[in-house]
Amino acid sequence: MDRVFNFSPGPATLPLPVLERAQKELVSCGGHGMSVMEMSHRSKMYMEIIEAAEAELRELMGIPDNYKVLFMGGGATMQFSCVPINLKQNGKADYIVSGSFAKKASQEAAKFLDVNVVASSKDTNFNCIPDLANAKFDPDADYVHITTNNTIYGTRYTKLPEVGDVPLVADASSNILSEPMDVSRFGLLYAGAQKNIGIAGVTIVVIREDLIGRAAENTPVMLDYKTYADSESMYNTPPCYPIYIAKLVFDWLKEMGGVPAIQAINEMKANLLYDYLDNTSFYHATAKKADRSLMNVTFTLPEPAMDALFVKEAAENGLVNLKGHRSVGGIRASIYNAMPMEGVQKLVDFMADFEKRHG
Amino acid sequence: MDRVFNFSPGPATLPLPVLERAQKELVSCGGHGMSVMEMSHRSKMYMEIIEAAEAELRELMGIPDNYKVLFMGGGATMQFSCVPINLKQNGKADYIVSGSFAKKASQEAAKFLDVNVVASSKDTNFNCIPDLANAKFDPDADYVHITTNNTIYGTRYTKLPEVGDVPLVADASSNILSEPMDVSRFGLLYAGAQKNIGIAGVTIVVIREDLIGRAAENTPVMLDYKTYADSESMYNTPPCYPIYIAKLVFDWLKEMGGVPAIQAINEMKANLLYDYLDNTSFYHATAKKADRSLMNVTFTLPEPAMDALFVKEAAENGLVNLKGHRSVGGIRASIYNAMPMEGVQKLVDFMADFEKRHG
Ligand SMILES: Cc1ncc(COP(=O)(O)O)c(C=O)c1O
Ligand SMILES: Cc1ncc(COP(=O)(O)O)c(C=O)c1O
Ligand SMILES: [Mg+2]
Ligand SMILES: [Mg+2]
Ligand SMILES: [Mg+2]
Ligand SMILES: [Mg+2]
Repeated sequence: MDRVFNFSPGPATLPLPVLERAQKELVSCGGHGMSVMEMSHRSKMYMEIIEAAEAELRELMGIPDNYKVLFMGGGATMQFSCVPINLKQNGKADYIVSGSFAKKASQEAAKFLDVNVVASSKDTNFNCIPDLANAKFDPDADYVHITTNNTIYGTRYTKLPEVGDVPLVADASSNILSEPMDVSRFGLLYAGAQKNIGIAGVTIVVIREDLIGRAAENTPVMLDYKTYADSESMYNTPPCYPIYIAKLVFDWLKEMGGVPAIQAINEMKANLLYDYLDNTSFYHATAKKADRSLMNVTFTLPEPAMDALFVKEAAENGLVNLKGHRSVGGIRASIYNAMPMEGVQKLVDFMADFEKRHG
Repeated sequence: MDRVFNFSPGPATLPLPVLERAQKELVSCGGHGMSVMEMSHRSKMYMEIIEAAEAELRELMGIPDNYKVLFMGGGATMQFSCVPINLKQNGKADYIVSGSFAKKASQEAAKFLDVNVVASSKDTNFNCIPDLANAKFDPDADYVHITTNNTIYGTRYTKLPEVGDVPLVADASSNILSEPMDVSRFGLLYAGAQKNIGIAGVTIVVIREDLIGRAAENTPVMLDYKTYADSESMYNTPPCYPIYIAKLVFDWLKEMGGVPAIQAINEMKANLLYDYLDNTSFYHATAKKADRSLMNVTFTLPEPAMDALFVKEAAENGLVNLKGHRSVGGIRASIYNAMPMEGVQKLVDFMADFEKRHG
């Protein structure tokens, strides 16, 4: 096995058992004499896959019955448009800007309604979740939008904002399924699959039923949540194979013990890395301690000039994709559900060795 | 090998060498120590894949330099909205309604501009391409929309309408790459991948450059062709794995000799089936002879009541997904590029046997 440890922020590493199962079933799946890739989306065999994917996600996340699960294309970015288009009523929405995806979401929404940025951590280069003490939420806003985990900056909400009756909408692309989330606190949750769910090409939307059906008449059909809700995401051909991979990931996560069990592992992985970072002056963890992400660990070396060497030597040791995002520099280790403890341990060992040689 | 012959209209059968290669590379691809599914879309290794996919498609179709190739999500159905949203100028467009997808496209477009149905074959249940002798094309229309192959009814254009300077827009979902197309005759061509290109989850748009950048300011970002054109389809995470499968299919098609070579095979396959249908009174080919599709062959049995038995016995013989679309009934054999001659021969043999036993 020549596998590397892949710290990519997304598309990201997948559980090896998922890849091995996909490989085994690739040419012919389940005695059907064809690949999942070749199955008619309306066939019984494929319907079983998409229905199982939904049922398992409902079980894993504890999704209440009054929420629909939608499988959409277009990436999480398409949701930046879908959310305002579908939820617009009074024509205004509150956004908390905690990173560059949150900012992009707010800018896209401004095409469709009045956006009120109630809080932002831009001034500290998004190294924390904005302080909400003085945030003025509009009780007439159509929704409040947050980004539960900020992939680029390595921060996450540890506590949800109190928004009263206004629907809370969350981009959970980079921490869905990493720790329990109380779905009933949200009006809508969305996540691109290419981090904790599976592969790029499908985005999952979990939406409270009463929020469906509000889009204007002239909404593009594939952007209207009602299109998906009314057809079980089968109005047209869904991204069948990405949904199948999601199902395999859900199978794997259930076998791992579900979300609480993976949360415990995620905390061990993150703690190993953060404890190491905190105990050396060579490396510096960039995110505010209270808001540290379990999924994306961002840090710097003594000099930005050392970044390239670190990334190169790490890759030579089978630890790849550690370069921080171009907008912040430094190093980022994305350690999603599928990254095993062994990978994080190997990274810490490498970091200690690198420090010894270059400190 | 327990593979069946899969006559599904899409998602559809794939070339076995493509599946075998995907299988081989699934856990670790090209010495990179990771699956293509896990590659960052901005990594050098993945960029090579998407760039090769585009270059090979350009070569296979002979796409002129002044056309862009875009990789989008959302299925062909999303293009039903994107086309009017992006091409609207005078606010009106001409549609030829040759089947139910063409009709859906025209209905969706009517949300965004004035749709003029210049011709329709609805009166004969879409058994032919509409007669254009009396069609009144509007010289001020923003475009003329056609569906080059009608998946459900088994018809295709053998000759493109003359539209002067008005851009011709084509939904080529079910016959792209099956026979040469003169791209320079079109302003825009689009095709969902799940028939002749690969798997569901990516839609390919081939667009003349001067038609890009016309969308209104408040266009949803993932529906604007300019978003894709300006970023090489990398504004956000593209459907990476479906694009990789497309690349493998293009590799295979090139090895088969390209589009003219596959056209010759497609004609042999279709002729075998149509000749058989024409030489028996038991079966009846439903599409008008001059407009017969090379990709979807539709026919009826002496009694609709026999359909279910035919489909069931065929499946027992390893010939699956032959049921006609619910809107027309009867039988449909979809014989895309990846269906080998052997599969069509086996179908004809089965049909002869079925006729003998039930005729
Ligand atoms: C938090 C977050 N939101 C949105 C996106 C954009 O997702 P997509 O590329 O699927 O549009 C990303 C991508 O990394 C992300 O991390
Ligand atoms: C000609 C044609 N256009 C459009 C579609 C719809 O494609 P999608 O399911 O990708 O939206 C199909 C699907 O079979 C088709 O055959
Ligand atoms: Mg961010
Ligand atoms: Mg430190
Ligand atoms: Mg049709
Ligand atoms: Mg006949």
